Amino acid sequence: MRANSMRAARLHAYGSGKLRLEEVDEPSATAAHDVVVRIGGAGLCRTDLHIIEGRLRDAVGRLPRILGHENAGWVEEVGPAVSDMAVGDPVILHPLATCGRCLECRAGNDMHCADQSFPGLTADGGFAELVKTNHRAIVAVPSGLDPADVAPLADAGLAAIHAVKRVSANLTPDASAVVIGAGGLGHLGVQCLKALTPVRVIVVDTSAHALELAREVGADDAVLADGRHVEAVRELTGGAAAAVLDFVGEDDSIAAGLALLRRGGVYAVIGYGGTFTVPAVELVASELTIVGNLVGTYTDLVDLLALAAARKVHIRTTAYPLDSLNDAIADLDAGRLSGRAVIVP
Amino acid sequence: MRANSMRAARLHAYGSGKLRLEEVDEPSATAAHDVVVRIGGAGLCRTDLHIIEGRLRDAVGRLPRILGHENAGWVEEVGPAVSDMAVGDPVILHPLATCGRCLECRAGNDMHCADQSFPGLTADGGFAELVKTNHRAIVAVPSGLDPADVAPLADAGLAAIHAVKRVSANLTPDASAVVIGAGGLGHLGVQCLKALTPVRVIVVDTSAHALELAREVGADDAVLADGRHVEAVRELTGGAAAAVLDFVGEDDSIAAGLALLRRGGVYAVIGYGGTFTVPAVELVASELTIVGNLVGTYTDLVDLLALAAARKVHIRTTAYPLDSLNDAIADLDAGRLSGRAVIVP
Amino acid sequence: MRANSMRAARLHAYGSGKLRLEEVDEPSATAAHDVVVRIGGAGLCRTDLHIIEGRLRDAVGRLPRILGHENAGWVEEVGPAVSDMAVGDPVILHPLATCGRCLECRAGNDMHCADQSFPGLTADGGFAELVKTNHRAIVAVPSGLDPADVAPLADAGLAAIHAVKRVSANLTPDASAVVIGAGGLGHLGVQCLKALTPVRVIVVDTSAHALELAREVGADDAVLADGRHVEAVRELTGGAAAAVLDFVGEDDSIAAGLALLRRGGVYAVIGYGGTFTVPAVELVASELTIVGNLVGTYTDLVDLLALAAARKVHIRTTAYPLDSLNDAIADLDAGRLSGRAVIVP
Amino acid sequence: MRANSMRAARLHAYGSGKLRLEEVDEPSATAAHDVVVRIGGAGLCRTDLHIIEGRLRDAVGRLPRILGHENAGWVEEVGPAVSDMAVGDPVILHPLATCGRCLECRAGNDMHCADQSFPGLTADGGFAELVKTNHRAIVAVPSGLDPADVAPLADAGLAAIHAVKRVSANLTPDASAVVIGAGGLGHLGVQCLKALTPVRVIVVDTSAHALELAREVGADDAVLADGRHVEAVRELTGGAAAAVLDFVGEDDSIAAGLALLRRGGVYAVIGYGGTFTVPAVELVASELTIVGNLVGTYTDLVDLLALAAARKVHIRTTAYPLDSLNDAIADLDAGRLSGRAVIVP
Repeated sequence: MRANSMRAARLHAYGSGKLRLEEVDEPSATAAHDVVVRIGGAGLCRTDLHIIEGRLRDAVGRLPRILGHENAGWVEEVGPAVSDMAVGDPVILHPLATCGRCLECRAGNDMHCADQSFPGLTADGGFAELVKTNHRAIVAVPSGLDPADVAPLADAGLAAIHAVKRVSANLTPDASAVVIGAGGLGHLGVQCLKALTPVRVIVVDTSAHALELAREVGADDAVLADGRHVEAVRELTGGAAAAVLDFVGEDDSIAAGLALLRRGGVYAVIGYGGTFTVPAVELVASELTIVGNLVGTYTDLVDLLALAAARKVHIRTTAYPLDSLNDAIADLDAGRLSGRAVIVP
Repeated sequence: MRANSMRAARLHAYGSGKLRLEEVDEPSATAAHDVVVRIGGAGLCRTDLHIIEGRLRDAVGRLPRILGHENAGWVEEVGPAVSDMAVGDPVILHPLATCGRCLECRAGNDMHCADQSFPGLTADGGFAELVKTNHRAIVAVPSGLDPADVAPLADAGLAAIHAVKRVSANLTPDASAVVIGAGGLGHLGVQCLKALTPVRVIVVDTSAHALELAREVGADDAVLADGRHVEAVRELTGGAAAAVLDFVGEDDSIAAGLALLRRGGVYAVIGYGGTFTVPAVELVASELTIVGNLVGTYTDLVDLLALAAARKVHIRTTAYPLDSLNDAIADLDAGRLSGRAVIVP
Repeated sequence: MRANSMRAARLHAYGSGKLRLEEVDEPSATAAHDVVVRIGGAGLCRTDLHIIEGRLRDAVGRLPRILGHENAGWVEEVGPAVSDMAVGDPVILHPLATCGRCLECRAGNDMHCADQSFPGLTADGGFAELVKTNHRAIVAVPSGLDPADVAPLADAGLAAIHAVKRVSANLTPDASAVVIGAGGLGHLGVQCLKALTPVRVIVVDTSAHALELAREVGADDAVLADGRHVEAVRELTGGAAAAVLDFVGEDDSIAAGLALLRRGGVYAVIGYGGTFTVPAVELVASELTIVGNLVGTYTDLVDLLALAAARKVHIRTTAYPLDSLNDAIADLDAGRLSGRAVIVP
Repeated sequence: MRANSMRAARLHAYGSGKLRLEEVDEPSATAAHDVVVRIGGAGLCRTDLHIIEGRLRDAVGRLPRILGHENAGWVEEVGPAVSDMAVGDPVILHPLATCGRCLECRAGNDMHCADQSFPGLTADGGFAELVKTNHRAIVAVPSGLDPADVAPLADAGLAAIHAVKRVSANLTPDASAVVIGAGGLGHLGVQCLKALTPVRVIVVDTSAHALELAREVGADDAVLADGRHVEAVRELTGGAAAAVLDFVGEDDSIAAGLALLRRGGVYAVIGYGGTFTVPAVELVASELTIVGNLVGTYTDLVDLLALAAARKVHIRTTAYPLDSLNDAIADLDAGRLSGRAVIVP
């Protein structure tokens, strides 16, 4: 029988900027389709900062809460109705535990499930030794890949591939796509664009370090967001871009991104701090499309793991032991991270 | 040989609210692909009001200008390289005279042609006895239809069918679509929705008269925009709509429309006076899509004429003689029109 | 507690042309996701004839077998993990009991499930008082509809709407679609075409009676398959058809159907007795597409029930008591049925 | 003024296996949209062999005929209505001179133009110093590329990219595509698959030499068609393929290709000597799709040139002077060519 307590990082109060490392009860696979996973690694996401600040308190509900929604590891225990996985299987977790019965689930649109939970937000997550989800969230990690290395694919990578797929009809060989932000999500977005489409990829970021990472993972061009970047990108694209993928989503990036779209262009929104303020006449006159993106589907995640197994997507990670989680949070907040922080219990 | 002068309505100065009826030189098919059309009817559009107010002066260029961009009639004269139409053929004019050579034209995206003119805006239009366009703008009017009756299909109808097609993937038999505005465009949008999709159509308008027209042309429900309409529509749809088609595009309609979309919903923008002000997090959290629509393609117009010939689309028009054009303008501005005004020379 | 035995029609030996009416043990919802449904009506399908003849013996496995794969009724008993339906709910059964875990299920492609059963073929079916399936097969019957009336939607209707959706991109307002066969499937195909697309529908059948039914349910034209029908249809379409939906699938219908397709046309195969024999050069020269169709998805069935609830799809049925099932089989075999036979226990 | 005669290779009689090298009158840009191009290179295609054998005599019409339908070079002379190209511009020719007016042209479906000519088949082609086409066939060759090197993109490459695009919805990162035939078309098909999709590419060919070429241009696996290749490919794909692209199209390749498709798989037909013989029940039971492919669209060719300019598509060519054209024909017929023969005048 498994031990009764485990190490976990919980949020007890909003605004402190920190999680408390402590012993808590282990989760257990009590319901028919529960799956408990032993964490190999759990990615740290900017959304975790938003949760800690209190911006998502309606979704979080009652504190304390174990954060961590980008989880991979090995199956530890399964509920009585789960028969297609075995203890020890290496797995990565779709961020949503979905119902499988609603029409959205039946159509494959997991992100719109009408009866979902989101471990690390609406339930306890993966900054711990164990996490509980349900059987529909489980994706096998292909052999040759280590759960701790691929954990950021669960959310950062998933959002990236999902957004790339949704704009790919516009991404022909003679077109350009602009990626705004080459951090944890953006550097995966660049690779998904290169793996799935023939488009030329131009990355814009405020950090020279991030631009270097972007070039390393395959960006065709990298432009510093220094106030003259709209002109710089226009010169590179010979006009304007077929698509913008905005992994930042702040007012500044939105203004720049909209200015970069050609007629018939499409704006994929993934980051979400700012506000779109667009006269309808601009949308009409250039037939622009704006597409919101929320995590992704189960098959998106399967596709992404296949790309990782084929070495077409490489994740830049920095590992932190669970006890140093608050250091990782501080580093992310201060912009000191390159790629994605992964917490290893 | 044709006469040298014709009757036309020209804009001489912005802000007067009126066009001047006068004699002008007739156009003539001098260039290789020119086509001159004898006007059977020319629809009056809210964009004409915007032009008269001076909102589109950059596009208009030098005054005076003959307005009228919703034109149908009979071929009068063709340029030397035009061989596939004959004098007297009944025709309707795609609003754009496109180049046929750029990549957008080659892909069928006429509205994005890189080298276009727009008679009635950037060149002289159809509030006259004759109008000049090029051979690529000409669509045959099927037998049984009268050019004067179908003229509003050239722009109002074209924008409507184009928008309906672009959101139709979302319009399943158990879904609802909300049409905002049941005027000249909207009453055609309702009919295109009913003809092309199985969706339930709910119309919102500030005018009881417009709602009556909406019901007559097939709307399943019609809701007065009285401040409580968001709740009223939500009750009818049992939640929220798969699509909003906004033929008004003012700040109020945009706010109401966004509030009515379900997760994964799509907002088609056709009217364009107002401004979208949407936090990125709303677009992300519900995976909303906003789609700008600009006129439509040549094949959209062919499809629309086929629907009219099959009596699936009926246009509600009020005819005005050319000399009463300023009365029609005043009636449109004052909201006294039901359906579309058509100017008959 | 429920009674222990029920009346059922079982196949005991191939080739006799008959099923044996007898008392058998009732099914019971033993597994976690089992659902037992009390039959309101079970449609009789040409596939049942094929099974009785022994053509599908590999799929059937061990005899005896209760046939009947087009089932609707009321929930009678649910397994311990089923929580979203109640005893007495009116329901219709997707013909496949799917696993919900494989990639095809996760993408919404129920018909390609890697671990499925098919009651009435690979398991006991609905020519009985009760039938057992799993929770993923259950679709609610909207209020106002009677399970016995809609049972044929479960398979005949499902195949029809699925095929219509898969060819609908070709079905523009000025195009024609040819429906071959206006029997149990075809008369539903005609209605799905009219409800979902603006295409002109031309029906071909060898039976004047079937053509009459086709016209009653909305076909624009109905042509007797008398050897001169290819020419007759060509005259009606002014050339050739954008799509053929072949609900017969015999050598003759295939030859006629291929001859009727225009360049870029698509051939939907639903019936399946014959063989396609097509030189590759014909497929290439006219860029034809041939599309096989197998039942449909869960959402296809939900959409179809919505059409039925909106009275856009009407099913022509003839009811037979369970004890007269062999009469129904004889009538179907002899071509004496109009629409679909429904067996009522 | 240009000289009055030029060197050309003409077919005078079917069945001889040879073209006659002779002096003929130069073409001249007499009609409004004519364009005469000085040949830099003209690819030799298996279709040329079929023409010489007399298989396409209905299309060819009256002899003698200059063959050569895969042409690139420099603009030599333009008709009076052509204003968007200059003498000396490096260009490649879409194989069809289309009308630009029919509905298929307006929708971008150049290959279905209702009023087309096909230089090298229905009109004189490019095995000569000059060839005449119309303005709609002209695609600019990007700087850095030599017309003689890219000529095979005009037809072989065009058919390949067109077929790849039409099946790409099935080509996910975890899927396999089987390419049958790695000759002039197939080796370009492999590269288009790798450039446009993340799919694993498995090539089957009867020639070890062709398999070597396939590997050099990026095939993930290459399997000799030795009678056991269906089993060999099944082992590599772990079951079956999501798509087959058949550049051979003979009875043998069709049988093998169909046997390799998984449920929901799609068969792209490009080569065309053989016959499909498929029971309808097989198409239905596995929901297979068979897609005929005919050359491609103008935008397909633009996309392909962009891939070539980005060095993502490399063409393997062997140059022959025009006077050695009959040697090239013999080499192609005997299977002695690797890649594509290009005739240089």
